[in-house]
Amino acid sequence: MTQPYVIRPIGHVESPLRDREAAPRQGDEGAPDAWLVFDATVSEALRDLDTGTDVIVLTWLDRADRDVLAVRPRGDASRPMTGVFSTRSPDRPNPIGLHRVTIAAIDGLRVLVRNLEALDGTPIVDVKPVLGDPGDR
Amino acid sequence: MTQPYVIRPIGHVESPLRDREAAPRQGDEGAPDAWLVFDATVSEALRDLDTGTDVIVLTWLDRADRDVLAVRPRGDASRPMTGVFSTRSPDRPNPIGLHRVTIAAIDGLRVLVRNLEALDGTPIVDVKPVLGDPGDR
Repeated sequence: MTQPYVIRPIGHVESPLRDREAAPRQGDEGAPDAWLVFDATVSEALRDLDTGTDVIVLTWLDRADRDVLAVRPRGDASRPMTGVFSTRSPDRPNPIGLHRVTIAAIDGLRVLVRNLEALDGTPIVDVKPVLGDPGDR
Repeated sequence: MTQPYVIRPIGHVESPLRDREAAPRQGDEGAPDAWLVFDATVSEALRDLDTGTDVIVLTWLDRADRDVLAVRPRGDASRPMTGVFSTRSPDRPNPIGLHRVTIAAIDGLRVLVRNLEALDGTPIVDVKPVLGDPGDR
């Protein structure tokens, strides 16, 4: 049950966000546009993405601390320590980022999205349709 | 950018779903209750989960085919081949499952959830609050 698995990134984020201190504290508090830059090996998986639709992007938060199990939410010292499974802290045992974004433009292997809270260079691991949309599974 | 990362499962699913053929085709078409059984090493990360709330469970779909880049949605031969990033196919380069579930009961390291489409034994990799709920990050 505890066998490890290997994530192979399929691309990376190009963003003006360069470090965690500059990043917004939460996705829905506003984040910049960013480019998703995909590897050519997954071009077939991308081919049905459409401008104007929302998708869920999964990233690997490569600058996270995987030994953290509890945090003060939003880094607010007045809030109690909270188990990370009840927070969106990037610091957690498997630091997978979950981002709902709108596709603004597609240029080959480059996809421009609105409102992505992910640092420049963050590895991309998956893209999924929003559940309930046509085409699921 | 293409460096691999290692996922270390934090628990596993106990479910009556034993194989893919028996699984519902999509999460919102109805799925059974299941137990999330967590490793003792992450008990601190779990401690603020609450019965009655919805959470997002991330799993590693360990029986998936990672070489698949396009599928016919829902396995329907009448539908066109579609890039997997526009589908919820478990077969995809990084087979991470995304499941919104309701917590029905908590018993130590065991958490009972409603409506989880995941096969028995599936590794759990993360749990997150639903975005927009109090306590985010």
